[in-house]
Amino acid sequence: MKLVSFLHSGAPRWGVVDGNRILAAPASLPSLRGALREHGTAVLSQATEPIDPGAVTALPPIPDAEKVICVGLNYADHIAETGRDKPSHPVIFTRFADSLVGDHAPLIAPRESVTFDFEGELAVVIGKEGRRIPVEAALDHVLGYSILNDGSIREFQHQTHQFTPGKNFDASGAFGPAIATPDELGDLSGHRITTTLNGEVVQDSDLGQLVFGVADLISRISTWTTLRPGDVIATGTPGGIGAAREPKLWMFPGDRVEVSINGIGTLSNPIVEDDDHSTAA
Amino acid sequence: MKLVSFLHSGAPRWGVVDGNRILAAPASLPSLRGALREHGTAVLSQATEPIDPGAVTALPPIPDAEKVICVGLNYADHIAETGRDKPSHPVIFTRFADSLVGDHAPLIAPRESVTFDFEGELAVVIGKEGRRIPVEAALDHVLGYSILNDGSIREFQHQTHQFTPGKNFDASGAFGPAIATPDELGDLSGHRITTTLNGEVVQDSDLGQLVFGVADLISRISTWTTLRPGDVIATGTPGGIGAAREPKLWMFPGDRVEVSINGIGTLSNPIVEDDDHSTAA
Repeated sequence: MKLVSFLHSGAPRWGVVDGNRILAAPASLPSLRGALREHGTAVLSQATEPIDPGAVTALPPIPDAEKVICVGLNYADHIAETGRDKPSHPVIFTRFADSLVGDHAPLIAPRESVTFDFEGELAVVIGKEGRRIPVEAALDHVLGYSILNDGSIREFQHQTHQFTPGKNFDASGAFGPAIATPDELGDLSGHRITTTLNGEVVQDSDLGQLVFGVADLISRISTWTTLRPGDVIATGTPGGIGAAREPKLWMFPGDRVEVSINGIGTLSNPIVEDDDHSTAA
Repeated sequence: MKLVSFLHSGAPRWGVVDGNRILAAPASLPSLRGALREHGTAVLSQATEPIDPGAVTALPPIPDAEKVICVGLNYADHIAETGRDKPSHPVIFTRFADSLVGDHAPLIAPRESVTFDFEGELAVVIGKEGRRIPVEAALDHVLGYSILNDGSIREFQHQTHQFTPGKNFDASGAFGPAIATPDELGDLSGHRITTTLNGEVVQDSDLGQLVFGVADLISRISTWTTLRPGDVIATGTPGGIGAAREPKLWMFPGDRVEVSINGIGTLSNPIVEDDDHSTAA
Protein backbone atom coordinates (compact mmCIF):
# COMPACT_ATOMS: atom_id res chain seq x y z
CA MET A 1 0.00 0.00 0.00
CA LYS A 2 1.20 3.53 -0.77
CA LEU A 3 -0.01 6.49 1.25
CA VAL A 4 -0.02 10.07 0.02
CA SER A 5 -1.02 13.53 1.25
CA PHE A 6 -2.08 16.24 -1.17
CA LEU A 7 -4.03 19.40 -1.81
CA HIS A 8 -7.38 18.88 -3.54
CA SER A 9 -9.63 21.88 -4.28
CA GLY A 10 -7.38 23.85 -1.95
CA ALA A 11 -7.84 21.53 1.04
CA PRO A 12 -5.25 19.17 2.52
CA ARG A 13 -6.29 15.52 2.20
CA TRP A 14 -4.67 12.12 2.33
CA GLY A 15 -5.32 8.78 0.76
CA VAL A 16 -4.08 5.56 -0.75
CA VAL A 17 -2.70 5.09 -4.26
CA ASP A 18 -4.80 2.55 -6.16
CA GLY A 19 -3.31 2.02 -9.63
CA ASN A 20 -4.09 5.20 -11.58
CA ARG A 21 -6.43 6.55 -8.93
CA ILE A 22 -6.10 7.99 -5.50
CA LEU A 23 -8.61 6.78 -2.95
CA ALA A 24 -8.98 9.64 -0.49
CA ALA A 25 -9.89 9.48 3.17
CA PRO A 26 -13.00 11.43 4.20
CA ALA A 27 -12.37 15.18 4.42
CA SER A 28 -13.83 15.02 7.93
CA LEU A 29 -10.78 13.12 9.17
CA PRO A 30 -7.73 15.02 10.38
CA SER A 31 -4.34 14.78 8.66
CA LEU A 32 -2.76 11.35 8.21
CA ARG A 33 -0.70 11.97 11.35
CA GLY A 34 -3.76 13.04 13.34
CA ALA A 35 -5.91 10.22 12.00
CA LEU A 36 -3.28 7.59 12.88
CA ARG A 37 -2.97 8.98 16.39
CA GLU A 38 -6.72 9.04 16.94
CA HIS A 39 -7.73 5.83 15.22
CA GLY A 40 -4.62 3.71 14.60
CA THR A 41 -3.79 2.12 11.27
CA ALA A 42 -7.36 0.79 10.95
CA VAL A 43 -8.20 4.29 9.70
CA LEU A 44 -6.39 3.55 6.43
CA SER A 45 -9.34 1.40 5.30
CA GLN A 46 -11.51 4.54 5.29
CA ALA A 47 -9.66 5.86 2.22
CA THR A 48 -12.27 4.97 -0.41
CA GLU A 49 -13.22 8.18 -2.30
CA PRO A 50 -11.78 8.02 -5.83
CA ILE A 51 -9.94 11.19 -6.85
CA ASP A 52 -8.22 11.98 -10.14
CA PRO A 53 -4.45 12.19 -9.44
CA GLY A 54 -4.29 14.95 -12.06
CA ALA A 55 -6.42 17.18 -9.83
CA VAL A 56 -4.12 17.10 -6.82
CA THR A 57 -0.92 18.81 -5.72
CA ALA A 58 1.41 16.57 -3.74
CA LEU A 59 2.25 17.46 -0.15
CA PRO A 60 4.86 15.72 1.96
CA PRO A 61 3.23 12.41 3.02
CA ILE A 62 3.21 13.75 6.60
CA PRO A 63 2.85 17.51 5.98
CA ASP A 64 2.53 18.34 9.68
CA ALA A 65 5.28 16.10 11.07
CA GLU A 66 6.01 16.93 14.71
CA LYS A 67 9.38 15.19 14.82
CA VAL A 68 11.65 14.96 11.82
CA ILE A 69 14.68 13.22 13.29
CA CYS A 70 17.66 13.17 10.95
CA VAL A 71 20.66 10.87 11.09
CA GLY A 72 24.06 12.00 9.85
CA LEU A 73 27.02 9.82 8.87
CA ASN A 74 25.15 6.57 8.29
CA TYR A 75 26.82 5.22 5.10
CA ALA A 76 30.50 4.27 5.11
CA ASP A 77 31.31 6.17 1.89
CA HIS A 78 29.67 9.36 3.21
CA ILE A 79 31.54 9.10 6.52
CA ALA A 80 34.80 8.80 4.54
CA GLU A 81 34.06 11.84 2.35
CA THR A 82 33.32 14.05 5.38
CA GLY A 83 36.67 13.11 6.91
CA ARG A 84 34.99 12.14 10.19
CA ASP A 85 35.36 8.89 12.14
CA LYS A 86 32.65 6.25 12.08
CA PRO A 87 30.42 7.29 15.00
CA SER A 88 29.75 4.93 17.89
CA HIS A 89 26.26 6.42 18.18
CA PRO A 90 23.97 7.83 15.48
CA VAL A 91 24.55 11.53 14.87
CA ILE A 92 21.14 13.14 15.35
CA PHE A 93 19.84 16.54 14.27
CA THR A 94 16.34 17.74 13.43
CA ARG A 95 14.37 19.50 10.71
CA PHE A 96 11.22 21.55 11.09
CA ALA A 97 8.29 20.39 8.93
CA ASP A 98 8.20 23.68 7.00
CA SER A 99 11.73 23.10 5.75
CA LEU A 100 10.27 20.28 3.59
CA VAL A 101 8.15 20.40 0.43
CA GLY A 102 6.33 17.62 -1.40
CA ASP A 103 7.07 15.85 -4.67
CA HIS A 104 7.35 18.23 -7.66
CA ALA A 105 7.19 21.31 -5.41
CA PRO A 106 10.02 23.82 -5.84
CA LEU A 107 13.04 23.79 -3.58
CA ILE A 108 14.17 27.34 -2.85
CA ALA A 109 17.82 28.19 -3.37
CA PRO A 110 18.27 30.76 -0.60
CA ARG A 111 19.79 34.09 -1.48
CA GLU A 112 22.17 34.00 1.49
CA SER A 113 24.46 31.28 0.15
CA VAL A 114 25.21 29.31 -3.02
CA THR A 115 26.17 26.21 -1.02
CA PHE A 116 22.87 24.39 -1.58
CA ASP A 117 23.49 20.63 -1.54
CA PHE A 118 21.43 17.45 -2.04
CA GLU A 119 21.19 14.45 0.31
CA GLY A 120 19.01 11.56 -0.84
CA GLU A 121 17.77 9.49 2.10
CA LEU A 122 15.46 6.69 3.12
CA ALA A 123 12.78 8.07 5.48
CA VAL A 124 11.05 5.87 8.04
CA VAL A 125 7.53 6.88 9.11
CA ILE A 126 6.40 5.67 12.51
CA GLY A 127 2.97 4.01 12.77
CA LYS A 128 2.81 2.96 16.42
CA GLU A 129 3.76 4.81 19.59
CA GLY A 130 6.66 3.61 21.68
CA ARG A 131 9.43 4.51 24.10
CA ARG A 132 12.53 2.40 24.77
CA ILE A 133 11.53 0.06 21.99
CA PRO A 134 13.66 -3.11 21.90
CA VAL A 135 15.46 -3.73 18.59
CA GLU A 136 13.55 -6.96 18.05
CA ALA A 137 10.20 -5.13 18.29
CA ALA A 138 11.24 -1.99 16.41
CA LEU A 139 10.00 -2.86 12.93
CA ASP A 140 6.47 -3.29 14.32
CA HIS A 141 6.52 0.48 14.84
CA VAL A 142 7.14 1.25 11.15
CA LEU A 143 4.15 2.49 9.17
CA GLY A 144 6.23 2.58 6.01
CA TYR A 145 9.13 4.00 4.06
CA SER A 146 9.48 7.14 2.03
CA ILE A 147 12.20 9.35 0.52
CA LEU A 148 13.63 12.52 1.98
CA ASN A 149 15.99 14.94 0.27
CA ASP A 150 17.79 16.47 3.25
CA GLY A 151 18.70 19.62 1.30
CA SER A 152 21.44 21.47 3.14
CA ILE A 153 22.92 24.95 3.00
CA ARG A 154 26.46 23.89 3.86
CA GLU A 155 27.73 27.35 4.75
CA PHE A 156 25.01 27.69 7.41
CA GLN A 157 25.33 24.06 8.52
CA HIS A 158 28.93 24.74 9.47
CA GLN A 159 28.57 28.26 10.92
CA THR A 160 28.97 26.58 14.30
CA HIS A 161 29.33 22.98 15.51
CA GLN A 162 25.52 22.51 15.49
CA PHE A 163 23.90 21.85 12.09
CA THR A 164 20.41 23.34 12.67
CA PRO A 165 20.45 26.52 10.52
CA GLY A 166 21.85 24.83 7.40
CA LYS A 167 19.30 22.03 7.70
CA ASN A 168 16.24 24.22 8.20
CA PHE A 169 15.96 26.88 5.53
CA ASP A 170 12.31 27.15 4.51
CA ALA A 171 11.53 24.80 1.59
CA SER A 172 15.12 23.60 1.31
CA GLY A 173 14.33 19.87 1.55
CA ALA A 174 11.75 17.50 0.09
CA PHE A 175 9.77 14.51 1.35
CA GLY A 176 7.72 12.06 -0.73
CA PRO A 177 6.26 11.05 -3.08
CA ALA A 178 4.52 8.41 -0.96
CA ILE A 179 4.85 6.18 2.09
CA ALA A 180 5.25 2.59 0.95
CA THR A 181 4.21 0.07 3.58
CA PRO A 182 6.93 -2.48 4.48
CA ASP A 183 5.30 -5.30 2.47
CA GLU A 184 5.94 -3.24 -0.70
CA LEU A 185 9.70 -3.44 -0.12
CA GLY A 186 10.45 -6.63 1.79
CA ASP A 187 14.08 -6.78 2.86
CA LEU A 188 15.66 -3.32 2.49
CA SER A 189 18.97 -4.81 1.34
CA GLY A 190 19.18 -4.78 -2.43
CA HIS A 191 17.04 -1.67 -2.78
CA ARG A 192 19.02 1.03 -4.58
CA ILE A 193 18.94 4.65 -3.45
CA THR A 194 19.94 6.97 -6.28
CA THR A 195 20.13 10.76 -6.49
CA THR A 196 20.38 12.55 -9.82
CA LEU A 197 21.03 16.22 -10.54
CA ASN A 198 19.80 17.23 -13.99
CA GLY A 199 19.69 13.56 -14.91
CA GLU A 200 23.26 12.78 -13.88
CA VAL A 201 23.75 10.21 -11.11
CA VAL A 202 25.40 11.90 -8.11
CA GLN A 203 24.61 9.39 -5.34
CA ASP A 204 24.03 5.66 -5.76
CA SER A 205 24.01 3.14 -2.96
CA ASP A 206 22.08 0.25 -1.46
CA LEU A 207 19.85 0.44 1.62
CA GLY A 208 21.76 -2.57 2.92
CA GLN A 209 24.75 -0.26 3.44
CA LEU A 210 23.22 1.64 6.39
CA VAL A 211 25.64 1.66 9.35
CA PHE A 212 22.80 1.91 11.88
CA GLY A 213 19.87 -0.01 10.43
CA VAL A 214 16.20 0.95 10.77
CA ALA A 215 15.43 -1.23 13.80
CA ASP A 216 18.58 -0.10 15.57
CA LEU A 217 17.77 3.59 14.92
CA ILE A 218 14.20 3.23 16.22
CA SER A 219 15.43 1.50 19.34
CA ARG A 220 18.20 4.00 20.05
CA ILE A 221 16.14 7.13 19.31
CA SER A 222 13.23 5.88 21.42
CA THR A 223 15.62 5.65 24.36
CA TRP A 224 15.20 9.39 24.79
CA THR A 225 12.04 10.42 22.94
CA THR A 226 8.63 8.83 22.55
CA LEU A 227 8.04 8.00 18.90
CA ARG A 228 4.45 8.49 17.77
CA PRO A 229 2.53 7.87 14.54
CA GLY A 230 3.62 10.35 11.88
CA ASP A 231 7.07 10.93 13.33
CA VAL A 232 9.79 10.69 10.70
CA ILE A 233 13.34 9.37 10.84
CA ALA A 234 15.58 10.35 7.92
CA THR A 235 18.24 7.67 7.95
CA GLY A 236 21.21 9.52 6.46
CA THR A 237 22.72 9.98 3.02
CA PRO A 238 25.21 7.93 1.00
CA GLY A 239 28.45 9.30 -0.45
CA GLY A 240 28.52 11.72 -3.36
CA ILE A 241 27.33 14.98 -1.79
CA GLY A 242 28.24 18.15 -3.64
CA ALA A 243 30.27 19.57 -0.74
CA ALA A 244 32.73 16.66 -0.89
CA ARG A 245 33.48 17.12 -4.61
CA GLU A 246 36.21 19.10 -6.31
CA PRO A 247 34.98 21.30 -7.80
CA LYS A 248 31.98 21.61 -5.47
CA LEU A 249 28.63 20.73 -6.99
CA TRP A 250 25.85 23.02 -5.79
CA MET A 251 22.20 23.25 -6.83
CA PHE A 252 21.03 26.39 -8.65
CA PRO A 253 17.70 27.72 -9.91
CA GLY A 254 16.78 25.86 -13.07
CA ASP A 255 18.24 22.55 -11.84
CA ARG A 256 16.16 19.48 -11.05
CA VAL A 257 17.07 17.02 -8.30
CA GLU A 258 15.58 13.55 -8.05
CA VAL A 259 15.95 10.82 -5.44
CA SER A 260 14.73 7.31 -6.25
CA ILE A 261 14.39 4.17 -4.16
CA ASN A 262 13.00 1.14 -5.97
CA GLY A 263 9.79 0.00 -4.33
CA ILE A 264 8.98 3.55 -3.17
CA GLY A 265 9.29 5.77 -6.24
CA THR A 266 10.99 9.00 -7.26
CA LEU A 267 11.01 12.33 -5.41
CA SER A 268 11.52 15.01 -8.06
CA ASN A 269 11.98 18.72 -7.35
CA PRO A 270 12.99 21.76 -9.39
CA ILE A 271 15.21 24.39 -7.80
CA VAL A 272 13.87 27.94 -7.97
CA GLU A 273 15.02 31.45 -7.13
CA ASP A 274 14.35 32.85 -3.69
CA ASP A 275 11.52 35.36 -3.99
CA ASP A 276 11.40 38.12 -1.46
CA HIS A 277 10.17 36.66 1.81
CA SER A 278 11.53 39.45 3.95
CA THR A 279 9.52 41.19 6.60
CA ALA A 280 9.68 44.95 6.19
CA ALA A 281 11.24 46.97 8.99
CA MET B 1 -0.04 40.99 31.09
CA LYS B 2 0.88 37.41 31.96
CA LEU B 3 -0.33 34.51 29.83
CA VAL B 4 -0.65 30.93 31.07
CA SER B 5 -1.76 27.54 29.75
CA PHE B 6 -3.15 24.89 32.07
CA LEU B 7 -5.34 21.87 32.54
CA HIS B 8 -8.78 22.59 34.03
CA SER B 9 -11.26 19.74 34.57
CA GLY B 10 -8.94 17.64 32.42
CA ALA B 11 -9.03 19.96 29.41
CA PRO B 12 -6.18 22.15 28.15
CA ARG B 13 -7.05 25.86 28.38
CA TRP B 14 -5.21 29.16 28.37
CA GLY B 15 -5.78 32.53 29.90
CA VAL B 16 -4.48 35.70 31.51
CA VAL B 17 -3.35 36.09 35.11
CA ASP B 18 -5.43 38.75 36.85
CA GLY B 19 -4.19 39.21 40.42
CA ASN B 20 -5.29 36.07 42.29
CA ARG B 21 -7.51 34.86 39.46
CA ILE B 22 -7.00 33.39 36.07
CA LEU B 23 -9.22 34.75 33.33
CA ALA B 24 -9.57 31.90 30.86
CA ALA B 25 -10.20 32.11 27.13
CA PRO B 26 -13.32 30.34 25.86
CA ALA B 27 -12.91 26.56 25.69
CA SER B 28 -14.06 26.77 22.07
CA LEU B 29 -10.81 28.51 21.08
CA PRO B 30 -7.77 26.42 20.11
CA SER B 31 -4.52 26.47 22.10
CA LEU B 32 -2.78 29.79 22.66
CA ARG B 33 -0.52 29.05 19.69
CA GLY B 34 -3.48 28.15 17.48
CA ALA B 35 -5.56 31.12 18.64
CA LEU B 36 -2.72 33.57 17.97
CA ARG B 37 -2.20 32.14 14.49
CA GLU B 38 -5.89 32.29 13.66
CA HIS B 39 -6.85 35.57 15.28
CA GLY B 40 -3.69 37.50 16.16
CA THR B 41 -3.03 39.06 19.54
CA ALA B 42 -6.52 40.60 19.60
CA VAL B 43 -7.68 37.16 20.76
CA LEU B 44 -6.09 37.81 24.17
CA SER B 45 -8.98 40.12 25.07
CA GLN B 46 -11.32 37.11 24.90
CA ALA B 47 -9.81 35.70 28.11
CA THR B 48 -12.56 36.76 30.52
CA GLU B 49 -13.85 33.64 32.31
CA PRO B 50 -12.69 33.70 35.97
CA ILE B 51 -11.12 30.44 37.11
CA ASP B 52 -9.72 29.54 40.53
CA PRO B 53 -5.93 29.11 40.12
CA GLY B 54 -6.15 26.36 42.76
CA ALA B 55 -8.20 24.25 40.36
CA VAL B 56 -5.68 24.19 37.54
CA THR B 57 -2.51 22.28 36.69
CA ALA B 58 0.09 24.38 34.91
CA LEU B 59 1.16 23.44 31.40
CA PRO B 60 4.03 25.01 29.50
CA PRO B 61 2.68 28.40 28.31
CA ILE B 62 2.86 27.04 24.74
CA PRO B 63 2.24 23.32 25.32
CA ASP B 64 2.17 22.50 21.61
CA ALA B 65 5.15 24.58 20.45
CA GLU B 66 6.12 23.70 16.88
CA LYS B 67 9.58 25.23 17.05
CA VAL B 68 11.62 25.34 20.23
CA ILE B 69 14.85 26.89 19.01
CA CYS B 70 17.64 26.78 21.57
CA VAL B 71 20.77 28.89 21.66
CA GLY B 72 23.98 27.55 23.16
CA LEU B 73 26.99 29.54 24.37
CA ASN B 74 25.30 32.90 24.82
CA TYR B 75 26.76 34.14 28.14
CA ALA B 76 30.50 34.88 28.43
CA ASP B 77 30.92 32.93 31.71
CA HIS B 78 29.21 29.86 30.25
CA ILE B 79 31.35 29.99 27.10
CA ALA B 80 34.45 30.09 29.33
CA GLU B 81 33.36 27.12 31.46
CA THR B 82 32.73 24.93 28.37
CA GLY B 83 36.25 25.64 27.10
CA ARG B 84 34.90 26.74 23.72
CA ASP B 85 35.63 29.94 21.80
CA LYS B 86 33.08 32.75 21.66
CA PRO B 87 31.03 31.85 18.58
CA SER B 88 30.73 34.24 15.64
CA HIS B 89 27.18 32.97 15.06
CA PRO B 90 24.60 31.71 17.56
CA VAL B 91 24.91 27.98 18.22
CA ILE B 92 21.45 26.57 17.47
CA PHE B 93 19.88 23.27 18.43
CA THR B 94 16.25 22.28 18.99
CA ARG B 95 13.97 20.64 21.53
CA PHE B 96 10.73 18.79 20.90
CA ALA B 97 7.72 20.12 22.81
CA ASP B 98 7.29 16.84 24.71
CA SER B 99 10.73 17.21 26.27
CA LEU B 100 9.27 20.12 28.29
CA VAL B 101 6.90 20.15 31.27
CA GLY B 102 5.11 23.04 32.96
CA ASP B 103 5.69 24.77 36.28
CA HIS B 104 5.60 22.38 39.29
CA ALA B 105 5.44 19.31 37.03
CA PRO B 106 8.06 16.64 37.67
CA LEU B 107 11.25 16.47 35.66
CA ILE B 108 12.20 12.86 35.01
CA ALA B 109 15.77 11.80 35.83
CA PRO B 110 16.27 9.19 33.10
CA ARG B 111 17.52 5.78 34.09
CA GLU B 112 20.12 5.72 31.31
CA SER B 113 22.46 8.31 32.83
CA VAL B 114 23.05 10.23 36.06
CA THR B 115 24.37 13.27 34.15
CA PHE B 116 21.14 15.29 34.45
CA ASP B 117 22.00 18.99 34.46
CA PHE B 118 20.09 22.29 34.80
CA GLU B 119 20.22 25.29 32.45
CA GLY B 120 18.15 28.32 33.43
CA GLU B 121 17.26 30.45 30.40
CA LEU B 122 15.21 33.39 29.20
CA ALA B 123 12.64 32.17 26.64
CA VAL B 124 11.27 34.47 23.95
CA VAL B 125 7.80 33.66 22.60
CA ILE B 126 7.00 34.92 19.11
CA GLY B 127 3.73 36.80 18.58
CA LYS B 128 3.90 37.84 14.93
CA GLU B 129 5.00 35.91 11.85
CA GLY B 130 8.12 36.95 10.00
CA ARG B 131 11.01 35.86 7.82
CA ARG B 132 14.27 37.75 7.40
CA ILE B 133 13.21 40.17 10.08
CA PRO B 134 15.51 43.20 10.36
CA VAL B 135 17.07 43.73 13.80
CA GLU B 136 15.33 47.07 14.18
CA ALA B 137 11.87 45.46 13.69
CA ALA B 138 12.59 42.27 15.62
CA LEU B 139 11.15 43.23 19.00
CA ASP B 140 7.76 43.86 17.32
CA HIS B 141 7.62 40.08 16.82
CA VAL B 142 7.90 39.30 20.54
CA LEU B 143 4.70 38.25 22.28
CA GLY B 144 6.50 38.05 25.59
CA TYR B 145 9.14 36.46 27.76
CA SER B 146 9.15 33.30 29.81
CA ILE B 147 11.59 30.94 31.52
CA LEU B 148 12.96 27.68 30.20
CA ASN B 149 15.01 25.13 32.08
CA ASP B 150 16.95 23.49 29.24
CA GLY B 151 17.51 20.31 31.25
CA SER B 152 20.27 18.28 29.64
CA ILE B 153 21.53 14.70 29.89
CA ARG B 154 25.19 15.53 29.32
CA GLU B 155 26.32 12.01 28.52
CA PHE B 156 23.81 11.82 25.65
CA GLN B 157 24.43 15.44 24.57
CA HIS B 158 28.05 14.54 23.91
CA GLN B 159 27.59 11.05 22.44
CA THR B 160 28.36 12.70 19.10
CA HIS B 161 29.03 16.25 17.94
CA GLN B 162 25.26 16.97 17.64
CA PHE B 163 23.43 17.72 20.91
CA THR B 164 19.91 16.44 20.04
CA PRO B 165 19.58 13.27 22.19
CA GLY B 166 20.84 14.88 25.41
CA LYS B 167 18.48 17.83 24.92
CA ASN B 168 15.35 15.83 24.17
CA PHE B 169 14.70 13.21 26.82
CA ASP B 170 10.97 13.13 27.53
CA ALA B 171 10.09 15.53 30.39
CA SER B 172 13.71 16.55 30.95
CA GLY B 173 13.16 20.31 30.65
CA ALA B 174 10.64 22.84 31.91
CA PHE B 175 8.94 25.93 30.49
CA GLY B 176 6.89 28.50 32.41
CA PRO B 177 5.32 29.60 34.64
CA ALA B 178 3.90 32.34 32.39
CA ILE B 179 4.60 34.52 29.39
CA ALA B 180 5.11 38.11 30.57
CA THR B 181 4.45 40.67 27.87
CA PRO B 182 7.38 43.03 27.18
CA ASP B 183 5.77 45.96 29.05
CA GLU B 184 6.04 43.90 32.27
CA LEU B 185 9.83 43.85 31.98
CA GLY B 186 10.92 46.99 30.15
CA ASP B 187 14.64 46.92 29.36
CA LEU B 188 15.96 43.37 29.86
CA SER B 189 19.24 44.67 31.29
CA GLY B 190 19.16 44.64 35.06
CA HIS B 191 16.82 41.65 35.24
CA ARG B 192 18.47 38.84 37.18
CA ILE B 193 18.27 35.24 36.04
CA THR B 194 18.92 32.87 38.93
CA THR B 195 18.86 29.07 39.16
CA THR B 196 18.72 27.28 42.50
CA LEU B 197 19.09 23.58 43.24
CA ASN B 198 17.53 22.64 46.60
CA GLY B 199 17.58 26.32 47.51
CA GLU B 200 21.26 26.89 46.77
CA VAL B 201 22.11 29.41 44.04
CA VAL B 202 23.90 27.62 41.18
CA GLN B 203 23.49 30.17 38.38
CA ASP B 204 23.09 33.92 38.74
CA SER B 205 23.44 36.43 35.95
CA ASP B 206 21.82 39.43 34.30
CA LEU B 207 19.84 39.35 31.06
CA GLY B 208 22.02 42.24 29.93
CA GLN B 209 24.91 39.76 29.64
CA LEU B 210 23.51 37.94 26.57
CA VAL B 211 26.16 37.77 23.83
CA PHE B 212 23.53 37.70 21.07
CA GLY B 213 20.60 39.81 22.27
CA VAL B 214 16.92 39.06 21.65
CA ALA B 215 16.52 41.27 18.58
CA ASP B 216 19.73 39.95 17.06
CA LEU B 217 18.65 36.32 17.62
CA ILE B 218 15.22 36.88 16.05
CA SER B 219 16.79 38.53 13.04
CA ARG B 220 19.45 35.85 12.55
CA ILE B 221 17.16 32.85 13.13
CA SER B 222 14.50 34.27 10.80
CA THR B 223 17.14 34.36 8.05
CA TRP B 224 16.53 30.65 7.57
CA THR B 225 13.17 29.82 9.17
CA THR B 226 9.83 31.61 9.28
CA LEU B 227 9.01 32.48 12.89
CA ARG B 228 5.31 32.20 13.72
CA PRO B 229 3.17 32.94 16.78
CA GLY B 230 3.91 30.42 19.51
CA ASP B 231 7.43 29.63 18.35
CA VAL B 232 9.93 29.72 21.19
CA ILE B 233 13.56 30.82 21.34
CA ALA B 234 15.50 29.72 24.43
CA THR B 235 18.30 32.23 24.62
CA GLY B 236 21.04 30.20 26.33
CA THR B 237 22.24 29.66 29.87
CA PRO B 238 24.68 31.56 32.10
CA GLY B 239 27.70 30.00 33.80
CA GLY B 240 27.37 27.60 36.68
CA ILE B 241 26.13 24.41 35.03
CA GLY B 242 26.71 21.20 36.94
CA ALA B 243 28.87 19.64 34.21
CA ALA B 244 31.48 22.40 34.57
CA ARG B 245 31.91 21.93 38.35
CA GLU B 246 34.36 19.77 40.25
CA PRO B 247 32.89 17.66 41.63
CA LYS B 248 30.07 17.52 39.06
CA LEU B 249 26.66 18.61 40.31
CA TRP B 250 23.86 16.48 38.88
CA MET B 251 20.13 16.47 39.63
CA PHE B 252 18.63 13.42 41.35
CA PRO B 253 15.14 12.27 42.32
CA GLY B 254 14.09 14.22 45.42
CA ASP B 255 15.84 17.42 44.31
CA ARG B 256 14.03 20.64 43.39
CA VAL B 257 15.29 23.01 40.71
CA GLU B 258 14.04 26.57 40.34
CA VAL B 259 14.77 29.25 37.76
CA SER B 260 13.70 32.85 38.48
CA ILE B 261 13.71 35.99 36.38
CA ASN B 262 12.39 39.09 38.06
CA GLY B 263 9.39 40.41 36.16
CA ILE B 264 8.45 36.93 34.95
CA GLY B 265 8.40 34.71 38.05
CA THR B 266 9.81 31.38 39.17
CA LEU B 267 9.77 28.06 37.35
CA SER B 268 9.91 25.35 40.02
CA ASN B 269 10.19 21.62 39.36
CA PRO B 270 10.86 18.53 41.45
CA ILE B 271 13.04 15.76 40.05
CA VAL B 272 11.48 12.30 40.10
CA GLU B 273 12.48 8.72 39.34
CA ASP B 274 12.00 7.36 35.87
CA ASP B 275 9.02 5.02 35.96
CA ASP B 276 8.91 2.23 33.45
CA HIS B 277 8.06 3.78 30.08
CA SER B 278 9.41 0.90 28.04
CA THR B 279 7.51 -0.69 25.22
CA ALA B 280 7.36 -4.47 25.59
CA ALA B 281 9.04 -6.58 22.95
